[in-house]
Amino acid sequence: MENLLFILTYIAVTASAISGALEARKHEMDIVGATTIAFVNAFGGGTMRDLLLGRTPIFWIVDPWFSIITFVVTLFSFYRLNNIPDKLLIIPDAIGLGLFSILGATYSLQLHLSPIVAVLMGVVTGIFGGVLRDLMCNRIPNVFRSSTELYATCSFIGTWIFIILTWFNANTIIASTVGAGVIFVLRLLAVRFKMTLPAP
Amino acid sequence: MENLLFILTYIAVTASAISGALEARKHEMDIVGATTIAFVNAFGGGTMRDLLLGRTPIFWIVDPWFSIITFVVTLFSFYRLNNIPDKLLIIPDAIGLGLFSILGATYSLQLHLSPIVAVLMGVVTGIFGGVLRDLMCNRIPNVFRSSTELYATCSFIGTWIFIILTWFNANTIIASTVGAGVIFVLRLLAVRFKMTLPAP
Amino acid sequence: MENLLFILTYIAVTASAISGALEARKHEMDIVGATTIAFVNAFGGGTMRDLLLGRTPIFWIVDPWFSIITFVVTLFSFYRLNNIPDKLLIIPDAIGLGLFSILGATYSLQLHLSPIVAVLMGVVTGIFGGVLRDLMCNRIPNVFRSSTELYATCSFIGTWIFIILTWFNANTIIASTVGAGVIFVLRLLAVRFKMTLPAP
Repeated sequence: MENLLFILTYIAVTASAISGALEARKHEMDIVGATTIAFVNAFGGGTMRDLLLGRTPIFWIVDPWFSIITFVVTLFSFYRLNNIPDKLLIIPDAIGLGLFSILGATYSLQLHLSPIVAVLMGVVTGIFGGVLRDLMCNRIPNVFRSSTELYATCSFIGTWIFIILTWFNANTIIASTVGAGVIFVLRLLAVRFKMTLPAP
Repeated sequence: MENLLFILTYIAVTASAISGALEARKHEMDIVGATTIAFVNAFGGGTMRDLLLGRTPIFWIVDPWFSIITFVVTLFSFYRLNNIPDKLLIIPDAIGLGLFSILGATYSLQLHLSPIVAVLMGVVTGIFGGVLRDLMCNRIPNVFRSSTELYATCSFIGTWIFIILTWFNANTIIASTVGAGVIFVLRLLAVRFKMTLPAP
Repeated sequence: MENLLFILTYIAVTASAISGALEARKHEMDIVGATTIAFVNAFGGGTMRDLLLGRTPIFWIVDPWFSIITFVVTLFSFYRLNNIPDKLLIIPDAIGLGLFSILGATYSLQLHLSPIVAVLMGVVTGIFGGVLRDLMCNRIPNVFRSSTELYATCSFIGTWIFIILTWFNANTIIASTVGAGVIFVLRLLAVRFKMTLPAP
């Protein structure tokens, strides 16, 4: 289980770094910009969560492998990767959304915070990488736009399910797997069927 | 007094959430964007202050009621509120500016920081919600623009008055009330008489 | 040595405040905007570093002189400074880049973080003031653009040299001076010869 979590985390980080690097290329940035955007995309949510919860030094500062992987993947993606369809990145990105949301909620529960705040931290961990990436590219965050398929909503629903399962003393591994799984599947369905939130 | 402070805080948070939600609607965001903008608008200044001072976990993480109120107010404002004149929000917003500025300065004095830093923290707490909201809406913060009526300046003057009164051992409640009152009145006068800062 | 470091730091902060104030004027901001941009430009990198490492309260909150100097310099630059050529600011800015990069790496080594993270913190400390300044002025950070002369790269190379010298037990003062010196010289050469990073 530990190993699976480990592998999934690195898949998600790698996907974030790739899409960050490709995004940077679209904005005529150099490798400095690409590396920063890749970092922000991959670690922005978790960094926000750790800052708000007071968990410092931040996780990617303690474990240098996150930085090394991100550097290498960004270098390769920025200079060598071509013709990669956006669709290919949706699956690892959805894995990341599921994992990071549940991780954010788990850390909050460990600090004995209330369920609503734990859900909030789950969503923040899941979406804020993309929010900060878009701000650095000087545009309104994609996840806020009414035309975007459900993203934060998937994280919101799956994290609530995780919290409720935990409430009923479900096994942690089961609760986490179900929560992350729901987020993953919901996200893919949202993209497939172009599901968006109701407009005002 | 405690109760009054409590009520005033929630009035200010509610006003911030309403104006955040309406702002989000103007930018064609969905409810995810609206909730985030409302949160940032209401808690951005206090969050900045707590991060800089090292007061973690952040205040709105410890007390879940802030999140609950903001959620509910945003949902209602985003989907149901129409034809609300901007002018109506100026009064509760000015209450918030006064309260949050004095609160920021008070926390800094508790940490025995110098008066100039306490004033700075007061102003940051008062204005940074709006600054971060505007950045998320992809525009130069309104409070920085030379055409905007005095805003940070009101906070700056009132917070200095509060600090000076504290210096002369004035009763805390009196010093706070005078400081916040000056900010509130100055802000309303600035809007009424279109007072701006001198251009270079 | 202590005195020299002290003087160099204030030269760098002053230069950052001046260029921040002038930048604000270009965007039709008032003195509130100018002060904020000057602060962000001067202290944004160090603030980011301290937040990520958990060193709170932040350095410029503990020592009020940073705020006082920045206030005074900004007021003067915003209202009185005219016809100052951009080129004049390149030298003190390069001093700041060198100093702040090495300082960021030093703090990281003190926390026994890995070399790669120390380099990262060095670069973040060196460049993030400018990144946050540009974001507040609503544009893609200059240091990310492929047309910008080497900036983060100078910090990256010089910080690695500093780290490697430290590794071989070089005297701290010598390692710091060499590292900061390399960054300073590289940056001036990059501007002089319009050196940029290779495009993808």
